[in-house]
Amino acid sequence: MKHVILDCDPGHDDALALFMAMGDPQIDLMEVTTAGGNQSLEKVTKNALSLIELVGKKVPVYSGCPTPLVKAPKWAGYIHGETGLDGVKLDPPKTRVAGTHAAEQIVKTIMENPDQYVTLITTAPLTNIAMAALLEPKICSRVKEVIMMLGAVHTGNVTPVAEFNTYTDPEAAKVVFEREWPITMIGLDVTHQAICTKEVQQRLVKANPELGEVLNGLINFFRDSYKDEECFPDPPTHDPCAVAYTLDPSVVKTVKCPVSVETKGEVTCGMTVADLRAMAPKDCRTQVGLALDVEKFWNIVEKAIANLKVEK
Amino acid sequence: MKHVILDCDPGHDDALALFMAMGDPQIDLMEVTTAGGNQSLEKVTKNALSLIELVGKKVPVYSGCPTPLVKAPKWAGYIHGETGLDGVKLDPPKTRVAGTHAAEQIVKTIMENPDQYVTLITTAPLTNIAMAALLEPKICSRVKEVIMMLGAVHTGNVTPVAEFNTYTDPEAAKVVFEREWPITMIGLDVTHQAICTKEVQQRLVKANPELGEVLNGLINFFRDSYKDEECFPDPPTHDPCAVAYTLDPSVVKTVKCPVSVETKGEVTCGMTVADLRAMAPKDCRTQVGLALDVEKFWNIVEKAIANLKVEK
Amino acid sequence: MKHVILDCDPGHDDALALFMAMGDPQIDLMEVTTAGGNQSLEKVTKNALSLIELVGKKVPVYSGCPTPLVKAPKWAGYIHGETGLDGVKLDPPKTRVAGTHAAEQIVKTIMENPDQYVTLITTAPLTNIAMAALLEPKICSRVKEVIMMLGAVHTGNVTPVAEFNTYTDPEAAKVVFEREWPITMIGLDVTHQAICTKEVQQRLVKANPELGEVLNGLINFFRDSYKDEECFPDPPTHDPCAVAYTLDPSVVKTVKCPVSVETKGEVTCGMTVADLRAMAPKDCRTQVGLALDVEKFWNIVEKAIANLKVEK
Amino acid sequence: MKHVILDCDPGHDDALALFMAMGDPQIDLMEVTTAGGNQSLEKVTKNALSLIELVGKKVPVYSGCPTPLVKAPKWAGYIHGETGLDGVKLDPPKTRVAGTHAAEQIVKTIMENPDQYVTLITTAPLTNIAMAALLEPKICSRVKEVIMMLGAVHTGNVTPVAEFNTYTDPEAAKVVFEREWPITMIGLDVTHQAICTKEVQQRLVKANPELGEVLNGLINFFRDSYKDEECFPDPPTHDPCAVAYTLDPSVVKTVKCPVSVETKGEVTCGMTVADLRAMAPKDCRTQVGLALDVEKFWNIVEKAIANLKVEK
Repeated sequence: MKHVILDCDPGHDDALALFMAMGDPQIDLMEVTTAGGNQSLEKVTKNALSLIELVGKKVPVYSGCPTPLVKAPKWAGYIHGETGLDGVKLDPPKTRVAGTHAAEQIVKTIMENPDQYVTLITTAPLTNIAMAALLEPKICSRVKEVIMMLGAVHTGNVTPVAEFNTYTDPEAAKVVFEREWPITMIGLDVTHQAICTKEVQQRLVKANPELGEVLNGLINFFRDSYKDEECFPDPPTHDPCAVAYTLDPSVVKTVKCPVSVETKGEVTCGMTVADLRAMAPKDCRTQVGLALDVEKFWNIVEKAIANLKVEK
Repeated sequence: MKHVILDCDPGHDDALALFMAMGDPQIDLMEVTTAGGNQSLEKVTKNALSLIELVGKKVPVYSGCPTPLVKAPKWAGYIHGETGLDGVKLDPPKTRVAGTHAAEQIVKTIMENPDQYVTLITTAPLTNIAMAALLEPKICSRVKEVIMMLGAVHTGNVTPVAEFNTYTDPEAAKVVFEREWPITMIGLDVTHQAICTKEVQQRLVKANPELGEVLNGLINFFRDSYKDEECFPDPPTHDPCAVAYTLDPSVVKTVKCPVSVETKGEVTCGMTVADLRAMAPKDCRTQVGLALDVEKFWNIVEKAIANLKVEK
Repeated sequence: MKHVILDCDPGHDDALALFMAMGDPQIDLMEVTTAGGNQSLEKVTKNALSLIELVGKKVPVYSGCPTPLVKAPKWAGYIHGETGLDGVKLDPPKTRVAGTHAAEQIVKTIMENPDQYVTLITTAPLTNIAMAALLEPKICSRVKEVIMMLGAVHTGNVTPVAEFNTYTDPEAAKVVFEREWPITMIGLDVTHQAICTKEVQQRLVKANPELGEVLNGLINFFRDSYKDEECFPDPPTHDPCAVAYTLDPSVVKTVKCPVSVETKGEVTCGMTVADLRAMAPKDCRTQVGLALDVEKFWNIVEKAIANLKVEK
Repeated sequence: MKHVILDCDPGHDDALALFMAMGDPQIDLMEVTTAGGNQSLEKVTKNALSLIELVGKKVPVYSGCPTPLVKAPKWAGYIHGETGLDGVKLDPPKTRVAGTHAAEQIVKTIMENPDQYVTLITTAPLTNIAMAALLEPKICSRVKEVIMMLGAVHTGNVTPVAEFNTYTDPEAAKVVFEREWPITMIGLDVTHQAICTKEVQQRLVKANPELGEVLNGLINFFRDSYKDEECFPDPPTHDPCAVAYTLDPSVVKTVKCPVSVETKGEVTCGMTVADLRAMAPKDCRTQVGLALDVEKFWNIVEKAIANLKVEK
């Protein structure tokens, strides 16, 4: 059983990741925290609440930073639409966020639970996580591991070498990578193999017909965005890869290596610079994903999603 | 009456600023917050507690960020010595910091008091203030004003163009300057005129003979540091200038102008770039100090310090 | 007698500097070289030829780099107009540039003349000078001195801290300042005191009535540009300051100090960072101008210009 | 027949590239130009002369820039030894460089020959090439193509993402990539497949026993360097890949894509940023090599080297 804090910005692929985290019995989803990213903080927080209510779960949601640490905000409406979850109709949430700031709550949850209890999964820019580590440096040694959908070893999406989450808040990413916790970076090298073809989509819908309309709405809109904006015939479902890795690390081929974040470059700002030149130093605590076991991945996604019940 | 939060890192000149803020009856010193800067967080916090106890006051102290936002820490032991207050013997504090993090406490105090109630005085790197503004953006419109000893319009100290507080945490300074609160920057252009000659020193000691040993210890050590490290015959007493301005704005000649903080330069990192080219835009909410009314300044310092009683 | 190469980009103030260099008998103007700056290379070269013909001199002109070393070009048409010399009617030149590239010619002239023979005056971006130093590093020890209108110690013009010539080609400026030649930087701190009021203008016209129409055309247009673009009531005549300093160094108050050029900053790119913190190291070979003896300056300008005859 | 200017900094792998360019009858090696890189300009120029004399050829050598354009020089003695060609004994050259600067000569040769006549092969930092393009922009449209051993798409050598030639002079690389000539970048993605195993070494020696001692000396030293410094069991023979591609483009798998050079990054300075995200724009004039046909490559090397005669 993994005791998980999921920091996210739903977002179409975040929605699927959130479904997985709620559906798979191996995950104890302790709380969801939100940060501005795919859309504004207000919108992604509303989306998180609605998605949780949709499947009748009682996971507390804490909203966090409305802007990146230092950089000016620039959300991804061009991919996720005006609402951050365009293409699917969700009821407005009846529940509300808890009062505490996400970063403060992350600190609280980690410090009040046993050492090595909490696993942090992140699918948003790292603003909240950096803030938590700045507020209470002790969390870094108490977290079991940090599993992040973020970055790219070889090819970016927003720029030739930078992935959206890192590009949106490079300073936060720098702060997080420089802290002493075990980090697994699940970047575009992995997630661009998690292509949601129409066959895959049908399979997911079949696995949970109650969720079918929502899943189709999410995936169809996401497919269109990726077609129009990034020349992908089918969309890469980034964030579920981080949850799948949490459930079964063998689904991602990883390599240990030092990672730095470029915050000053003219054409490389927001790049996660993985040093693949030689063997990593023995005490290296960062690893990056390089490839995905695609079949195993979709099995994990399907199984997790199948468990959900839609609240009527 | 000014209701003041003083964010500091004592530090010799911070100690004098803190004495002033406790001594002058026009200041209601609500709380003291500390950040790593002149020395490590632990040391400057201990110093703050000891200084407050020395004069028998009951001001709560909240310790904040042990490191800058993004940059690696580099404290100023070469100026302030191993303890951050070398040269003066203070009893170890009997009181302790309150549990809350400085940034969280700053948010709390500003949000729980009336709009425009709190004046923020800062004499440390801006890490805590940036964190507070990131945690709760609403504080920026609620603060009456932010008065900062920091920066330089024309000539730096750590580098040719950067002053220590900005250089130590440039990203925090950038965050603070980009927020919508009224800022007065009291930088080196002002504080390098606040030279504590031996005559001035005697006058301060005479104004409060009980504090004489401490004042002499502080100023003598500070004089030696500035002689050895910066070729000053007598030390510039930076931080008291910010408190003096709070008490009487006419003590500093200021000009309204936009200010940016350079965070990426090779030789200019940490520079406060004041745009003095033309008239500031009407809605400009930053002003920088350019000169000090030296006589009026020392009168203010003397009067404030004279009011303190040493606790026996 | 100073044996001078003048590297310029006329430009209204370059025109006055060129007149001075041709008019004053203490200057042996060996050659004029041109670089893109106030306008494109082609236009400023044409202007240089026309100006020389206008006063019947036989100074060879060599055209150099059409673009900055690394940065994309951005000329100053907003100050100098479409032609680079708007406001004055000059005959198209009958003479042509010599075939050699300016940078190669600068090398040739310096290497073929005795050691310490040549004085370099620059009033343009430093592209040609950097190229010459890169082609033949030996020129740096053979030049008598380099006197440059460029840079700013305290306040810029194109940006809050960068002056146009440095901003236009910061990498070239970095190359030049890092070479081992004696450099005098006459920057905006000096040239913003060389204000050409209407009284000054009348005096110059009276000193050389033959040139009156041209002088009035130049200065009137320049005044209008500076009014519209930079909020100056009367224009600062930058480039003549460098020639005046060459003729009489006492006209500029200078200080020895190290100078670096920022090429990477976000808000400081192109800044000349003068280190005024303490005494310059003994082997410091750069000095910067800080103030102008205004009366002496205009006397020098007037005297030099008075000597010119207009070719009919 | 390719009419080639080879700009190099021998250097062990440059030596092999130079041998190929002199040995293969399809190449008309018009001239060799040298730049500081693997060792100082003086040393690599001496090496070029000695290597040419060794095989009795009459190729003129022009030495160029002793330092990078802007950055401080840092040669690769840790790979190529004190002389730049440690491990092999060469007679000191009897011939001397021609008087012209490499950059000026490159301009001359390109401008005096027919349009599209000259192919530029570079195996050194791009200082000379950038200088030539700055001196005479017209060369860029007259060159048939520029084939460069330089850069890396995925993994660097000097830093995690930067290759030595680009890292040594990033500004020159930026200048060259921004000019309008057809560029093929043969970077580490290709050259790290050109591993000179002991079997390959024997084959090359067998192909030209007269050259055997020199080849063994070169390759053995290079192998040791790469073992000690970069954890390679056998050395990658970078520079010959560029010559092999010139002789037979099918030996390298290439892709058209835009390439930028990072000159400002903190951890990415000197990176060649290839945009592999989508189809290149139609007018894209840069292509990068991604893989090597290893067998075909060594056949080309062997055949070219076999033709050389050692001068006795």
